[in-house]
Amino acid sequence: MTELNKQRWLDEIKWTDEGLVPAIAQDATTGRVLMFAWMNRESLAMTVEKGEAVYYSRSRKKLWHKGEESGHIQKVKSVRLDCDNDVILLAIEQIGDIACHTGRQSCFFREFSNGVWQTMDAVIKNPKDIYK
Amino acid sequence: MTELNKQRWLDEIKWTDEGLVPAIAQDATTGRVLMFAWMNRESLAMTVEKGEAVYYSRSRKKLWHKGEESGHIQKVKSVRLDCDNDVILLAIEQIGDIACHTGRQSCFFREFSNGVWQTMDAVIKNPKDIYK
Repeated sequence: MTELNKQRWLDEIKWTDEGLVPAIAQDATTGRVLMFAWMNRESLAMTVEKGEAVYYSRSRKKLWHKGEESGHIQKVKSVRLDCDNDVILLAIEQIGDIACHTGRQSCFFREFSNGVWQTMDAVIKNPKDIYK
Repeated sequence: MTELNKQRWLDEIKWTDEGLVPAIAQDATTGRVLMFAWMNRESLAMTVEKGEAVYYSRSRKKLWHKGEESGHIQKVKSVRLDCDNDVILLAIEQIGDIACHTGRQSCFFREFSNGVWQTMDAVIKNPKDIYK
């Protein structure tokens, strides 16, 4: 646990019953929304300390320093909080220009069109070449 | 219930145990992230049908056609889904240029700076004049 963990700015956040808060990561330059994940108290404190996005993986039940395997680190430019104190918005620089585990720039690569979810964005890099 | 409610594109979404999905609303022109809310199956179907954002209010436990009181309707330009099928991203035109109930453009008006959450954005319109 870090010193930051004890600080008041973390107490202002309305954590879920599981101690989490949703976090949106947006490209600081283009404004594109890249991904959505969850943070716990420790991961948000680490995000601010490191200046790199650290999430909490609900499936793996552990801290997830984004890019730890892929190298696709997210350099944090700003951290914002919403009016209800229950959502975090990160403005980031996405190293490698790939935020999605499918090898795409953004996780939001499908758009609703003609009654179906259409894939709109190409894979930049094969996931097999990202996660070795 | 509408015809759309029966459709397969809605079945592809990974709803929470409460039947909800998080939704991010982003300004289609500027890229600014304006708000975050939740949708249920019916509200997402209505969003597509109307071309206006309809959320599900967890506190009021009912459908919430954004702007129904304030007039600050959100015209939907596109609806995207993420790689895990569990987050919706709306590109919208924000009528009145105010998405936040505090009378600001965006709900994300506070930024973490020098150990505290600093308010960065001015109130455009007094909420008393919005919700009469």
